[in-house]
Amino acid sequence: MGELVLPDVDAWSCPIPSSRYPNVTLAHGDGGRLTHELIAALFQRAFGNAHLYRSHDGAAVDVPGGRAAVTTDSFVVRPLFFPGGDIGSLAVHGTVNDLAMCGARPKYLTAGFLLEEGLPMETLWRVARSMGAAARACGVEIVAGDTKVVDRGKGDGVYINTSGVGVFERDVEIHPGAVCAGDLVILSGDPGRHGLAVLAAREELAFEDEIRSDAASVAAPALALLEAGIEVHCLRDVTRGGLATAVVEIAEAAGLSVTLEQDQIPLSPVVRGGSEILGLDPLYLASEGRFLAIVPEPAADDALGVLRRFEVSQDACAIGQVRVDGRPTVELRTSVGTTRVVERLSGMSLPRIC
Amino acid sequence: MGELVLPDVDAWSCPIPSSRYPNVTLAHGDGGRLTHELIAALFQRAFGNAHLYRSHDGAAVDVPGGRAAVTTDSFVVRPLFFPGGDIGSLAVHGTVNDLAMCGARPKYLTAGFLLEEGLPMETLWRVARSMGAAARACGVEIVAGDTKVVDRGKGDGVYINTSGVGVFERDVEIHPGAVCAGDLVILSGDPGRHGLAVLAAREELAFEDEIRSDAASVAAPALALLEAGIEVHCLRDVTRGGLATAVVEIAEAAGLSVTLEQDQIPLSPVVRGGSEILGLDPLYLASEGRFLAIVPEPAADDALGVLRRFEVSQDACAIGQVRVDGRPTVELRTSVGTTRVVERLSGMSLPRIC
Repeated sequence: MGELVLPDVDAWSCPIPSSRYPNVTLAHGDGGRLTHELIAALFQRAFGNAHLYRSHDGAAVDVPGGRAAVTTDSFVVRPLFFPGGDIGSLAVHGTVNDLAMCGARPKYLTAGFLLEEGLPMETLWRVARSMGAAARACGVEIVAGDTKVVDRGKGDGVYINTSGVGVFERDVEIHPGAVCAGDLVILSGDPGRHGLAVLAAREELAFEDEIRSDAASVAAPALALLEAGIEVHCLRDVTRGGLATAVVEIAEAAGLSVTLEQDQIPLSPVVRGGSEILGLDPLYLASEGRFLAIVPEPAADDALGVLRRFEVSQDACAIGQVRVDGRPTVELRTSVGTTRVVERLSGMSLPRIC
Repeated sequence: MGELVLPDVDAWSCPIPSSRYPNVTLAHGDGGRLTHELIAALFQRAFGNAHLYRSHDGAAVDVPGGRAAVTTDSFVVRPLFFPGGDIGSLAVHGTVNDLAMCGARPKYLTAGFLLEEGLPMETLWRVARSMGAAARACGVEIVAGDTKVVDRGKGDGVYINTSGVGVFERDVEIHPGAVCAGDLVILSGDPGRHGLAVLAAREELAFEDEIRSDAASVAAPALALLEAGIEVHCLRDVTRGGLATAVVEIAEAAGLSVTLEQDQIPLSPVVRGGSEILGLDPLYLASEGRFLAIVPEPAADDALGVLRRFEVSQDACAIGQVRVDGRPTVELRTSVGTTRVVERLSGMSLPRIC
């Protein structure tokens, strides 16, 4: 990366003008178009440094003797407990996954709790115990913590921030900037179950088949790709904004286009059916245990072989290909041979999914 | 540290019984006695690992080629802007200070934002700009971030989590376990101005003299002690819970007692006067730009000489001494020669001060 000229931000007025968005809206937090604008227009300008401009899940920073990966994620999921997980295990898996997506082995987490006055102590214990169990299962330690309490009506039970530090065991460059035309886009499993499970739990919807969140650590299969010596260009977990937003973010950051094959995307029947009933596009439903691996075409079969050895990624498959095409776009080739442009999540109301 | 036997927490019921505290109260977040109980009884049991048991502001963790310091802190101060600072600069200085208190040079921060729907975009910009300016002034980079939005009435404008990574430039062991009997307790300047300034701004109190927060980075003087080769046993910034709580925490973690000399504690007239008017004990008022350095008595003069070279610690002075005395206690020798036992903050209502 070249020299970065820092803007004189102190002289600037708010870069998101009040004629556009005078106030923060729920959509600014859904991981889609407005979240992207908030980060690019406001936070990157205020904080400006080369790390933030890489548009990746975490940053690779220099420490004595090598590099470490650093990430942060806050969790505001509602309800706190849902089929397949809870805010505690989610807070561990989310940050573990972000570290793994940098190509780093997750090692240390911090936990910042924002508690609302009146939260049942028993609920906090269940959440903390779930975090501890998830951390032990992932082989990470929660090494530092902080607890703040806000007055009743100024929170919602418990919010959790987890930040993480991971170590690089090999010299890798895994981020959108490493993606090349011709690379295949591999998805580790069926997307959207987390988003649908949380929506169903929140709205007390009952589907014919129970829908459980896919929330899980994907560090083991992601790191196994590197251990197998496979050339991995980018890793990205599918979270807020869903599969579509994750692919658009990578394409835009890479300055390349992607064609996705609808027939190749392994939708589970319950997500397909539930989305239809609710009028939601499953490509925008969040996962919390699925990731994209972008690899050179010749390495794809080996990558799939590695991923399919793990239960969490046993249904991995190639769903698209990277190509050069003027302005970076993502298009979806449908079952009937037509194509449509895929954009970031925008206008669907899916707040507080993680 | 010896081997740590992890408890089988999954089999346990909530370690804070409902007969005692069925729900989280505001006092669980004030940094005093109940915060301590919550951490020791609940979080340490759920997360159990050797790092958390050290009772320090941050953890020193192994990374390839050396050690790094890792800390986390969440900020919920109300109001967002107060004389001498705002939630943005506070979030940077707080975590920078926690890293420096480990004896590490602060290098990288992460920023996790919890925004309430309806927050004026202009307010967010002011906060972010203040964070960016504070980070640049402290020589740290904000390398990763996250933004979540919660529905109106489920937050309070903006809450910020900052986590930090620092690097150790020398081989130091700075934590309560390194404190020895005979060590002197040095305070870097007059305590309590942050707490009083925030209370005054929140309650719209007007004192005769304006009261400004002391919030600032103390990394430069703290690290200068190490650069000067001074043997430092413990560093601790004075935050929630005030000077009294900080000293009690160190004493208990060290298993030693401390005698504080009231006459030596440099209270500013405005804090002395304001505390009297409000009926508050200034020893429990928060600072955000003051710290304790615990050093061997022979090194104290050199330490004071170093600290007084920096504006932020120009009024540093020795305020007490560590001693062995059965059960660890902290006592305050008053101006008239009597002594009283100093406990953790308990029962004063000072919520959301940082």
